[in-house]
Amino acid sequence: MRAVVYYGPGDKKLTDVPKPKIEEPTDAIVKITMTTICGTDLHILKGDLPEVKPGTILGHEAVGIVEEVGTHVKSVKPGDRVLISCITGCGYCSYCRKQMYSHCSRGGWILGHLINGTQAEYVRVPYADFNLYKIPDELRDEDVIFITDILPTAYECGVLNAEVKPGDVVAVVGAGPIGQSATMLSKLYSPSKIIVIDKYSKFRVEMALKHGADVGIVSSEEDPVKKVMELTDGEGADAVIEAVGIPESFELCTQLVKAGGRIGVVGVFGKPATLHLEKLWCHNVTIRTRLVDTYTIPTLLKLVESGRLNPRTLLTHRFKLDEAMKAYDIFSNAAKYNALKVALIP
Amino acid sequence: MRAVVYYGPGDKKLTDVPKPKIEEPTDAIVKITMTTICGTDLHILKGDLPEVKPGTILGHEAVGIVEEVGTHVKSVKPGDRVLISCITGCGYCSYCRKQMYSHCSRGGWILGHLINGTQAEYVRVPYADFNLYKIPDELRDEDVIFITDILPTAYECGVLNAEVKPGDVVAVVGAGPIGQSATMLSKLYSPSKIIVIDKYSKFRVEMALKHGADVGIVSSEEDPVKKVMELTDGEGADAVIEAVGIPESFELCTQLVKAGGRIGVVGVFGKPATLHLEKLWCHNVTIRTRLVDTYTIPTLLKLVESGRLNPRTLLTHRFKLDEAMKAYDIFSNAAKYNALKVALIP
Amino acid sequence: MRAVVYYGPGDKKLTDVPKPKIEEPTDAIVKITMTTICGTDLHILKGDLPEVKPGTILGHEAVGIVEEVGTHVKSVKPGDRVLISCITGCGYCSYCRKQMYSHCSRGGWILGHLINGTQAEYVRVPYADFNLYKIPDELRDEDVIFITDILPTAYECGVLNAEVKPGDVVAVVGAGPIGQSATMLSKLYSPSKIIVIDKYSKFRVEMALKHGADVGIVSSEEDPVKKVMELTDGEGADAVIEAVGIPESFELCTQLVKAGGRIGVVGVFGKPATLHLEKLWCHNVTIRTRLVDTYTIPTLLKLVESGRLNPRTLLTHRFKLDEAMKAYDIFSNAAKYNALKVALIP
Amino acid sequence: MRAVVYYGPGDKKLTDVPKPKIEEPTDAIVKITMTTICGTDLHILKGDLPEVKPGTILGHEAVGIVEEVGTHVKSVKPGDRVLISCITGCGYCSYCRKQMYSHCSRGGWILGHLINGTQAEYVRVPYADFNLYKIPDELRDEDVIFITDILPTAYECGVLNAEVKPGDVVAVVGAGPIGQSATMLSKLYSPSKIIVIDKYSKFRVEMALKHGADVGIVSSEEDPVKKVMELTDGEGADAVIEAVGIPESFELCTQLVKAGGRIGVVGVFGKPATLHLEKLWCHNVTIRTRLVDTYTIPTLLKLVESGRLNPRTLLTHRFKLDEAMKAYDIFSNAAKYNALKVALIP
Repeated sequence: MRAVVYYGPGDKKLTDVPKPKIEEPTDAIVKITMTTICGTDLHILKGDLPEVKPGTILGHEAVGIVEEVGTHVKSVKPGDRVLISCITGCGYCSYCRKQMYSHCSRGGWILGHLINGTQAEYVRVPYADFNLYKIPDELRDEDVIFITDILPTAYECGVLNAEVKPGDVVAVVGAGPIGQSATMLSKLYSPSKIIVIDKYSKFRVEMALKHGADVGIVSSEEDPVKKVMELTDGEGADAVIEAVGIPESFELCTQLVKAGGRIGVVGVFGKPATLHLEKLWCHNVTIRTRLVDTYTIPTLLKLVESGRLNPRTLLTHRFKLDEAMKAYDIFSNAAKYNALKVALIP
Repeated sequence: MRAVVYYGPGDKKLTDVPKPKIEEPTDAIVKITMTTICGTDLHILKGDLPEVKPGTILGHEAVGIVEEVGTHVKSVKPGDRVLISCITGCGYCSYCRKQMYSHCSRGGWILGHLINGTQAEYVRVPYADFNLYKIPDELRDEDVIFITDILPTAYECGVLNAEVKPGDVVAVVGAGPIGQSATMLSKLYSPSKIIVIDKYSKFRVEMALKHGADVGIVSSEEDPVKKVMELTDGEGADAVIEAVGIPESFELCTQLVKAGGRIGVVGVFGKPATLHLEKLWCHNVTIRTRLVDTYTIPTLLKLVESGRLNPRTLLTHRFKLDEAMKAYDIFSNAAKYNALKVALIP
Repeated sequence: MRAVVYYGPGDKKLTDVPKPKIEEPTDAIVKITMTTICGTDLHILKGDLPEVKPGTILGHEAVGIVEEVGTHVKSVKPGDRVLISCITGCGYCSYCRKQMYSHCSRGGWILGHLINGTQAEYVRVPYADFNLYKIPDELRDEDVIFITDILPTAYECGVLNAEVKPGDVVAVVGAGPIGQSATMLSKLYSPSKIIVIDKYSKFRVEMALKHGADVGIVSSEEDPVKKVMELTDGEGADAVIEAVGIPESFELCTQLVKAGGRIGVVGVFGKPATLHLEKLWCHNVTIRTRLVDTYTIPTLLKLVESGRLNPRTLLTHRFKLDEAMKAYDIFSNAAKYNALKVALIP
Repeated sequence: MRAVVYYGPGDKKLTDVPKPKIEEPTDAIVKITMTTICGTDLHILKGDLPEVKPGTILGHEAVGIVEEVGTHVKSVKPGDRVLISCITGCGYCSYCRKQMYSHCSRGGWILGHLINGTQAEYVRVPYADFNLYKIPDELRDEDVIFITDILPTAYECGVLNAEVKPGDVVAVVGAGPIGQSATMLSKLYSPSKIIVIDKYSKFRVEMALKHGADVGIVSSEEDPVKKVMELTDGEGADAVIEAVGIPESFELCTQLVKAGGRIGVVGVFGKPATLHLEKLWCHNVTIRTRLVDTYTIPTLLKLVESGRLNPRTLLTHRFKLDEAMKAYDIFSNAAKYNALKVALIP
């Protein structure tokens, strides 16, 4: 089958590899009908994640059709349309029992990382009963593809960790795909104001306004702290969502947050940040980090099914799997191409 | 009347000053029967809080007897024994309505800071209905004196912010009066293990064992991270309480916390700390800061009244108000004198 | 001044009475610009609340302009436009400190009940700092009038007590003003489906559909249990809101609720209901009752101010205060006149 | 093997039956080393649960040693000492994912109910990875036997559902094994007072005092409402735990609860109760029901392991499995024999 394979830093190829097989009675083989490229794939290609071995198929966001199941899979059967959680849980370790599937002692984030991933025609999914979710017939692949990773990421690590509530002022720092998702998902709680800040991109700030933001700030052109304080009588935002992953953006979040406010850190960080405890110690703030656990997938599916959430607009580009190298090029230069998310169709 | 007055960095005197008077109909004048010295008083004397004006009477922890009340005070009357919240709330601003009295728009921490404090024979307490709490007859001053500040501080900013729960492993970093209080108060929730860490003091670690700790670590002699990991199968502590206030102790807390764990920051910080987001971003941690709001005073009073909490052992030294300079000397050299808290009796 | 006065069961009159005066330094006198009639006023007139003394001015929902303030009122001044909480809290008793103003030891629901109410040209409001809220200039009286009582009632006792969450199925039993409000306010949390049930009124069910309901059921014509089960794969509703106040409607709620679901009881009950514990004991349900505390007024004001909530459509009829008897007639026969809420303008 | 088999209402026998076999690759066979009799077994014998088929082995509380495992069991192996959850979850249905294992779509309470139970030499346990918990070496069977059912029942349905908090007044209605457990487990949260009420048994009230109660009331001799009100300044209990299961005891709970308080219903009810909404509608109360989900087993194990919880005193009688008929006789006449829990040792 065709697949995008990682061969080491800077080196990926679209190539032919053997089709995966059932290895455990709890496995399923899924025929991929849509997969996407994630910022994390770019991190792998930069060599930032040395645990990824050359020869690994990339990708961890996908929907497809069940092709084959192991003898002990009970909740899905061949022919079922499913979405695949980007996180693989066993369902019974101490972490899975408390909905921290990302810290599963037998799984966690392994697809396209420690085992072969989804940018291929087929993928093997361990613990299929726990990690596959049936897709309602009336929904198309592009309606649900983002529920595999970026929507639960923005929801769990951003919106829920920042405890967005009706009437709140919400500040979202970073207007990439995660920032767009966080905006859209904050809206579910009817905050009184959503302010989205991006360092450079007017396109992304405008997209955020379409996704529900009330105010957009390009922070290289306008001081975001000054602006947020003006909009909040000098008090700051009740809920702040960090959606970039660099020290500067985290530190901006701590300047924007109101006394008693919460910061949800969604970004993937490569460096430490400075925490200004000399100011924050008496500011009654909560800072939360989280690797997505995808425990909110059932809720997100209901929201899309009922029409409360329409994430299709996050998809700006789609390619055939055979055009994967071109797709990577677009996604790696997202700003240039006004790209948010890029899909691959095997 | 006699009072301890601040005259500028390094300069305090026990001297005679006029007795306070009712200024607003919501004020009360309280005759102090016991007051204490707090670490914050030492900060003021170092000049760390330039907003404190020379001529201010120090002190914000006290119990006493109501001497006189303004025309609109309804819940206490002359002769009542009361404890005085170290934080002064108005009761009706937006922050007071959500129990963040420390951020009250008309008060907050003002006693011994922005208005005259409690290290004196009498003190004027604004919004007396909101800030005075009657002391049950059967309790002595030393039973309740710490409910004015350090117990709610350790409880709200430490135990509640770190969400200590039955069965948890709790790590307390710092075994001064706040660390001792946090130990004692964590115990209320029946954690399976309380580990207390102090950099130098064997005396303080031993006191913590008396106050309910299961394990004590002098971290200049034994690696606390290694020890805590040994005691927790390499997972770390569910709840970590920072009770020192320097970057090093905060950073230790972030090394001790388990995935999914919580850090309650109690220390008063003068410098920023490094937040290792490159490790913590995917560790599902919660970090909370708070200036004490004293909203738990009614609960703490019930716990002392019912004998569930016995904080008297925190009081290691008592002096007459006239010996205040000696008391300050002892408290400033707490390690040398094996001192925890020091009381002044007018 | 003109006022609607209660003289005993079945006996009310629009008459002239003395203008109220400041009695305590914390009082304010407010010139009413809009007030309404509440279902509770009808209860009083039926004689259901014998504690209401003949001679009492009726009414507890009103907005107006501050006319005069006591010497200790600090947060409002003559000329300020304000909304008056239907519940009067002192702000410092043990119940007020935990946001249960309805159980205030010095107040609670007293306006138009134990002291003179708002269906008059002027009203005296005790503890004005705590019970008056300034109205932003850009909002009209009809934008905010319902924030005095029915919106916080539907929100606190209904939506928050039933813990409505994104993706939930919500059932609202009763489509009167409270049921309409509960529908509108549930919507703030983006449930996947809101089902509104009224026993007789097609008009009210249609209004509910306009206020955000997805499905309307007239339960005298269609079995509501059967219909809700059909709509939820036989599982029932996650959140159920009781908005009638009779045993039959409460018992319906317990039939509609899903395992693990929550029931928020908003209705004012005159009789006991049967609780089918022989079925519910193992159903993991939560049932909550509450008299409105109005602690959510600041949030509701922000939601109206930001345009997230538009409650004006609840107002179906408006009269001059001089037409109060006619207004009472309309409101007492709400079904006949397709009335929801009725305003009086002094 | 020997087993206690149900043959219809009033008819049970100790008899020989075939040893169970692995039926699914996720099953385990456990050799029972200790099992107990539960009040529910008596209900079955009365014929109250017609779904139990004649020929079923009784019992759902047991510890033992793994004898054999299916090919897909990964977390336990033959020879491991384990405790068996009384509730059988699959681990991946929508209810199991939210810790409501009792409502598992493939399991729930099935042991000794819908499939053969534990009052035997061996038992087959489905989904062994999910439903077996290893017992630390240093703990004896009698230390952990109650963690299989009555401790999580009293904890989840009683203590957690009634939200017992430090400083609270707790009332426990019923001093049988569940009431004793609820007392012991409430103590973990340091309430200021625990009041235990039993209708007749002085023995049980005295046992409750040993298990941590502060006040015991025999309600056939002393009015419990009057007494609780005297002990709480007329306000009632913050947290009330119903541990009987009859309308009278539930209704007593609603009379004892303070405004703003919570009732956790643990009892198994056969009849409806009256809910006095005409009083409770404005009392801000929360009533919760729950069938035990056993999701707290890991926490309870840690508490016993660390010595914070010592439930051995609940075991008043122990018999060999061959004496099962005598054991049933004692347990059925618990009051006469001062029995709490009765163990069977195969």
